[in-house]
Amino acid sequence: MKDVDLKFSDGLIPVIVQDVENEEVLMMAYMNEEALKRTLDTGKAHYWSRSRGKLWLKGEESGNFQSVREIRVDCDGDTILLKVKQIGGACHKGYRSCFYRRMNGDIVSEKVFDPSKVYRGEN
Amino acid sequence: MKDVDLKFSDGLIPVIVQDVENEEVLMMAYMNEEALKRTLDTGKAHYWSRSRGKLWLKGEESGNFQSVREIRVDCDGDTILLKVKQIGGACHKGYRSCFYRRMNGDIVSEKVFDPSKVYRGEN
Repeated sequence: MKDVDLKFSDGLIPVIVQDVENEEVLMMAYMNEEALKRTLDTGKAHYWSRSRGKLWLKGEESGNFQSVREIRVDCDGDTILLKVKQIGGACHKGYRSCFYRRMNGDIVSEKVFDPSKVYRGEN
Repeated sequence: MKDVDLKFSDGLIPVIVQDVENEEVLMMAYMNEEALKRTLDTGKAHYWSRSRGKLWLKGEESGNFQSVREIRVDCDGDTILLKVKQIGGACHKGYRSCFYRRMNGDIVSEKVFDPSKVYRGEN
C-alpha cells in the first residue's frame, strides 16, 4: 500500500492539503489507515473526522471533491502533504481555503460558494 | 496578543509553514502559547518540540531561521498557517522542505545544505 513507513499517532496522521494548481494551502485534516487506503484506491481524498468520529469522503455532501495528484511524506514520516485538484472550495465556510483570515481576524479571501446551498449537515 | 480565538489541544496547536516566496510547504510543527508569543514578539518562528519537550527557536543551532511574514488561522481556529522567509533549508535532513519525498520513497528535491555541518544535536 505504501513504501515510506508512516507514523500514526493515536491512529491518525495529520494531512496538509495543497492546491496543485496555485500552491495555496487549502486545509488541514487527519487520516486513519482506512482513510489513506480509500484515498489511494479511489484517487479522492478521504479523511477521518475527529469531530464526527467517522470516515469522510471530502465532498460527499458538497460535491467539492479533491482529486489527489501527488502525495508527499515528511522527513519524520508523521505528516502527509496532499496535492489536489480542488473542486469548488475546500472550506465549509464557503472559501476556497480554510486559511481565509489573518490572526487579527482580517478576511483576505472571497467566498467561492454559499455554504447554506451545499451543506445540509456536513461539517 | 491575538484577535482570533485559537484552540490549543493539550496546550499545542499545529502550524503549517509555507515559503512566502515560492509557496512551497516547508514543514509542520507545533506551538504552545509561549512559542506563539515569542514568534509574535520577535518575528522569528518559535515552536514547541514534542520530542525534546522544550521551546525551540527554529534555526537556533543551524542558523536556518524563519522570518514570519504573515500568519493565517483556519476556519476552526485550530491550525495556524505561517508564511515565512526561510533562511537555508527547513529540514534537518538538509532539504529545503521536509516534504522532499513521495509516498513510494522517491526523493523529489535536492539537498541545499549538509546537515552534518550545521547540526550538532538539534533535531
